[in-house]
Amino acid sequence: MKQSIGAKPLAFPTPAWVVGTYDMNGKPNAMTAAWGGICCSNPPCISVSLRKATYTYAGIMENRAFTISIPSEAYVKQADHFGITSGRDEDKFEATCLTPVRSELVPAPYVGEFPVVLECKLLHTLEIGLHTLFVGEILDIKADESVLDENGNPNIEKIRPVIYNPGSRDYYGVGCSLGKAFSIGKEC
Amino acid sequence: MKQSIGAKPLAFPTPAWVVGTYDMNGKPNAMTAAWGGICCSNPPCISVSLRKATYTYAGIMENRAFTISIPSEAYVKQADHFGITSGRDEDKFEATCLTPVRSELVPAPYVGEFPVVLECKLLHTLEIGLHTLFVGEILDIKADESVLDENGNPNIEKIRPVIYNPGSRDYYGVGCSLGKAFSIGKEC
Repeated sequence: MKQSIGAKPLAFPTPAWVVGTYDMNGKPNAMTAAWGGICCSNPPCISVSLRKATYTYAGIMENRAFTISIPSEAYVKQADHFGITSGRDEDKFEATCLTPVRSELVPAPYVGEFPVVLECKLLHTLEIGLHTLFVGEILDIKADESVLDENGNPNIEKIRPVIYNPGSRDYYGVGCSLGKAFSIGKEC
Repeated sequence: MKQSIGAKPLAFPTPAWVVGTYDMNGKPNAMTAAWGGICCSNPPCISVSLRKATYTYAGIMENRAFTISIPSEAYVKQADHFGITSGRDEDKFEATCLTPVRSELVPAPYVGEFPVVLECKLLHTLEIGLHTLFVGEILDIKADESVLDENGNPNIEKIRPVIYNPGSRDYYGVGCSLGKAFSIGKEC
């Protein structure tokens, strides 16, 4: 029997990503975001939603660009830190001892220590309510060699990305393989 | 050392959700979607991106509503099946032996057997390219009593949602807890 639990921003899974921007003085900043996802295959695009009050919102509007850095489990504390403080008050890269790397494709920094990063050019801005949805075209993905498989594709078991659970506001890792997509459903 | 792997629609994690709609004859239909995410906290909204060619696209446009049914691991094969065939050719609920339940809030069906469902009213449509991004306002979430914790909140360890891995196109479960958000990062 299903129970109504009300109108809430809950879904499972949601990601734990870090959005990188420069501020108006060129200082690198980054913040954690869980409201986002891939939103188009061609051109490849990703969406991320931010509150207007964030310093990152201003950074995206200033530069029309952002990066998404995908943390591995090993950096879950640092990823969380990027979501606690504001870049107005603190240099978060300095606080976390992580390295802001300047993208060669867009005016935005990414987290050098995270295994996978997406370099995005702002394509669309959609005002929804408390959050603004930004659509970024993925101009390139860069990944550590250590997380690539033999065909040069990023391997989720090596990346070990972080899942955000908005139900109880905690983080999870990725578990076991459940089978091949576009395949196991043929048996139904 | 990071390698460029090109402009691709890849990110980690992405969800495996099932989007429910009625077709123009009122027949329930559903399809699997991984391009989506929460996109606003107030009003609570979720986005999902679909190709115009899908039968679900037509169903959303017809009814200005959709549901998101979140499968548990136990239903990964059925969830995959919803992504393989088209509702134009097959009654997918019949094929998977799953139950289309009529939402009382929006003109759209959800998957009765899946543990968590979101009932959404279409708020925005954004054409991006191959995919169209739909923003739906979450009017209510319904969850099986068996996945609620003692406070009535959905528990991710009981839901056991499915992660889609766009790198190698397979599914994963959720793994171990990595700590409390807005908390573990204070230690940095």
